[in-house]
Amino acid sequence: MTVFKKEEYLERIDRTKMRMTEMGMDVLVVSDPANMNYLTGYDGWSFYVPQVVIISLDSEEPVWVGREMDAAGARLTSFLRKDNIIGYPEYYVQIADRHPMEFVADVLIQRGWGKKIIGTETDTYYFSARGYEALKKGMYNASFIDGNLLVNWIRLIKSPHEINFMREAGKIMEKVVQTAIDVVAPGVRECDAVAEIMRAQIRGTEDFGGDYTAIVPLMPSGIKTSTAHLTWTDEPYDNEVAVNMELSACRNRYHSPMARTLYLGSNPPQKLQDTAKVVVEGLNGTLDAIKPGMLCEEVEKVWRDIISKAGLVKKSRIGYAMGLNYPPDWGEHTASLRPGDKTILQANMTFHMILGMWMDDWGFEVSEAFRVTEDGHETFANFPRKLFVKE
Amino acid sequence: MTVFKKEEYLERIDRTKMRMTEMGMDVLVVSDPANMNYLTGYDGWSFYVPQVVIISLDSEEPVWVGREMDAAGARLTSFLRKDNIIGYPEYYVQIADRHPMEFVADVLIQRGWGKKIIGTETDTYYFSARGYEALKKGMYNASFIDGNLLVNWIRLIKSPHEINFMREAGKIMEKVVQTAIDVVAPGVRECDAVAEIMRAQIRGTEDFGGDYTAIVPLMPSGIKTSTAHLTWTDEPYDNEVAVNMELSACRNRYHSPMARTLYLGSNPPQKLQDTAKVVVEGLNGTLDAIKPGMLCEEVEKVWRDIISKAGLVKKSRIGYAMGLNYPPDWGEHTASLRPGDKTILQANMTFHMILGMWMDDWGFEVSEAFRVTEDGHETFANFPRKLFVKE
Repeated sequence: MTVFKKEEYLERIDRTKMRMTEMGMDVLVVSDPANMNYLTGYDGWSFYVPQVVIISLDSEEPVWVGREMDAAGARLTSFLRKDNIIGYPEYYVQIADRHPMEFVADVLIQRGWGKKIIGTETDTYYFSARGYEALKKGMYNASFIDGNLLVNWIRLIKSPHEINFMREAGKIMEKVVQTAIDVVAPGVRECDAVAEIMRAQIRGTEDFGGDYTAIVPLMPSGIKTSTAHLTWTDEPYDNEVAVNMELSACRNRYHSPMARTLYLGSNPPQKLQDTAKVVVEGLNGTLDAIKPGMLCEEVEKVWRDIISKAGLVKKSRIGYAMGLNYPPDWGEHTASLRPGDKTILQANMTFHMILGMWMDDWGFEVSEAFRVTEDGHETFANFPRKLFVKE
Repeated sequence: MTVFKKEEYLERIDRTKMRMTEMGMDVLVVSDPANMNYLTGYDGWSFYVPQVVIISLDSEEPVWVGREMDAAGARLTSFLRKDNIIGYPEYYVQIADRHPMEFVADVLIQRGWGKKIIGTETDTYYFSARGYEALKKGMYNASFIDGNLLVNWIRLIKSPHEINFMREAGKIMEKVVQTAIDVVAPGVRECDAVAEIMRAQIRGTEDFGGDYTAIVPLMPSGIKTSTAHLTWTDEPYDNEVAVNMELSACRNRYHSPMARTLYLGSNPPQKLQDTAKVVVEGLNGTLDAIKPGMLCEEVEKVWRDIISKAGLVKKSRIGYAMGLNYPPDWGEHTASLRPGDKTILQANMTFHMILGMWMDDWGFEVSEAFRVTEDGHETFANFPRKLFVKE
């Protein structure tokens, strides 16, 4: 039982094949679990062993190859026919002298693709250097070209059904961030606060439930707000301390992230207040400027012009395309809102604009997940943009 | 502030260097986040961008190289001196024409390691084929050999402090599995049950908090119990249905997993009851046979002999080394309890013995996380081993 109708998967596969044709590619071996899901519906936590979806120009339906014990999962969650779901035996799993990609090579050859031009995703998390070598060695008559991010770029513009899941994730996100602001307090252990936040992520709403997020709550407090990706401890929160909260909600693997900063205490430092004010102005001004036809780098320029007036500088990008994903990242690794990115905004592209200011020993962050609309933008969640202060 | 004392990290590094020397390796480039943590203490959710820890025979302290915004995280969580923590600029991040591994190559050359024999982890999740190419191209005077799993094997025998964290994870695990049995019930949405389970994972106990687990709760119900790695939906549980629950708890990144099967209803099928009885006998008998000096394959043989008397067959391995880890897997990818694995059990090796029987349209699973002791085994959690039935 798939999340989307079969027609939607077939349409995605068609667009993938068009791009493959443009690139002179006969067959694409997809290893990224988000891309595998996008093309077939397959959804399981099995990406810790090698698994692929194979798209070939001469075959309507993709072929799923994974571990034998996961083949039933592919039958239950993808639209594929049984004969296009192939499990490799257990003796390929995590063993020194064999690699599952040898089995994948055999499948490719059996299907008549042994002398074709093969694309692979060379920079994705779950396709290793050794796996690539094993595939190339097994397919000695094939030639290989880089298909990295090919499907990721196909994912850039979302369908109405995908947008709907991101809106639902946004509704969950509102509950998640409200929960965070309610539970984080001086004396409360960080782990106890995160426990309530993760509970809210998974409960979702009365109408629909939540899925696991591709990144766990990033909740540094105090001096740890000077960096981006620390999680939590079991120490209680201090008083007069800031907590950066980069959170998300997820619905059928579609994300709607949101970051906010919460100050615990009655005396937020002036520099934090001043920075928050400028950054929120920057967020508002930049979002309001969004419209189809702009370049990604022009979006960043709007932001930079606003904050440079206040003397602020941000070195890192201010956003990135996101949507469907699996751990460890909800970003799609395609368009980024940064200088040099010439991607042209189009309706139903979806981004996470995250304005994280990480200073020497403090920081502030605020973000919105949004889609580009016909004439502007729509955020997926609706929540005040400000430095939250809780006395 | 590190979780272990500096001396423990230095001792781990010494053992790594001894193995490197045996293999004729001058420098090891470590990409696996668990290995990076093991050798330096570094703990952040930043492994979605390339990052490494470099061990060189001619340098006492490792070098951490990662994204600039994460360098402060390395300063806060590792024992490394500031000058051994190097951030790469933002313009290397997720961009088509540059790769962070080019920067890593530059660091290696600057440190005088440009002509050395370099080991890399060629089959780890977060070191891609393209990253490997970029590293080799940047270090054209170096030679490369495979250092895959080198540090993983060093991790096989745990220190008393590591065992202590796994015992603490086991204490959390008891609460987690009790929560699962309490909340899963007919009419309850799967997501609402999982929400309480994840809450219990992170809250931990009054004395210590929980960390995120490397695998989210795997909670297939009904026909989905025929496969291993499906997660959950927002549908309510039926009555007269089985739920397979493969769960874990985590403490300072150290895991203690546990699987149990819960039947909802008053009429568990006879085949499920019969299988459960045999499998639990197999688990008990196999654990009781554990002692130092046994080979991993001999452990599996004990199990196979017990269940074959009842006519049962299990194709997949019955366990694997585990402990410290990050998503997507808590397994260490070294020793497995399966035919052909000649690893000799030694005290303080730690395993997850998981007996998952995945049949055509149903399944049963039960597991224990344990350490090998001087004369037997110690499980990290204490919880009844049986088919749970909840009317």
